[in-house]
Amino acid sequence: MSKSLTLTPTETVACCSPLVASPLTEETAERIAPLLKAIADPVRLRLLSLVAAHDGGEACVCDLNDAFELSQPTISHHLKVLHEAGLLDRSKRGVWVYYRVHQEALSDLAALIGGGR
Amino acid sequence: MSKSLTLTPTETVACCSPLVASPLTEETAERIAPLLKAIADPVRLRLLSLVAAHDGGEACVCDLNDAFELSQPTISHHLKVLHEAGLLDRSKRGVWVYYRVHQEALSDLAALIGGGR
Repeated sequence: MSKSLTLTPTETVACCSPLVASPLTEETAERIAPLLKAIADPVRLRLLSLVAAHDGGEACVCDLNDAFELSQPTISHHLKVLHEAGLLDRSKRGVWVYYRVHQEALSDLAALIGGGR
Repeated sequence: MSKSLTLTPTETVACCSPLVASPLTEETAERIAPLLKAIADPVRLRLLSLVAAHDGGEACVCDLNDAFELSQPTISHHLKVLHEAGLLDRSKRGVWVYYRVHQEALSDLAALIGGGR
């Protein structure tokens, strides 16, 4: 149990059975909810989708600005939320931070939600 | 386009490509976000899971009370949110409303999130 306290939300998702296969514990549910909250936002859903579709599967905020009527700091904030949730990886090159979808985390989350059939 | 205005969130999810396969439109993202918001809550995640695990895959609020330190009206409210999002089906028998997981909606949502590999 003390070990599970160190798990990130994405690690928790990777560990647990599908939602409908066996009852989630309170602790697991508390850990997974923030991951879902991170994507339960139209701007962040589109950001994930746009990053994945961009050349080479990665993009910086400079590539994403034009798709939104939002300021660059606002978009950077949403990217940061997705990164902190473990759904976007990032690397710095020159003055820009490049983001890439953490496909494994998305796949694990999908298996958790829909793995019951 | 006018047709898509009549789609429910679950119908929208069933229609669209995986998140990472092609960029989501603003309209689609706006429709999907409420579905994710509905499950981005620890109590509602556990309710989905408990309903699915219950005898015959269905449960009424009377079966779910004991798992939570919440009042029955609060649990009923969360069940209603999940029903309105299209994630729980319901039927009335006698004085109780019985809920059942709408597995197709969860599977479609999972395909949307993790269908990129």
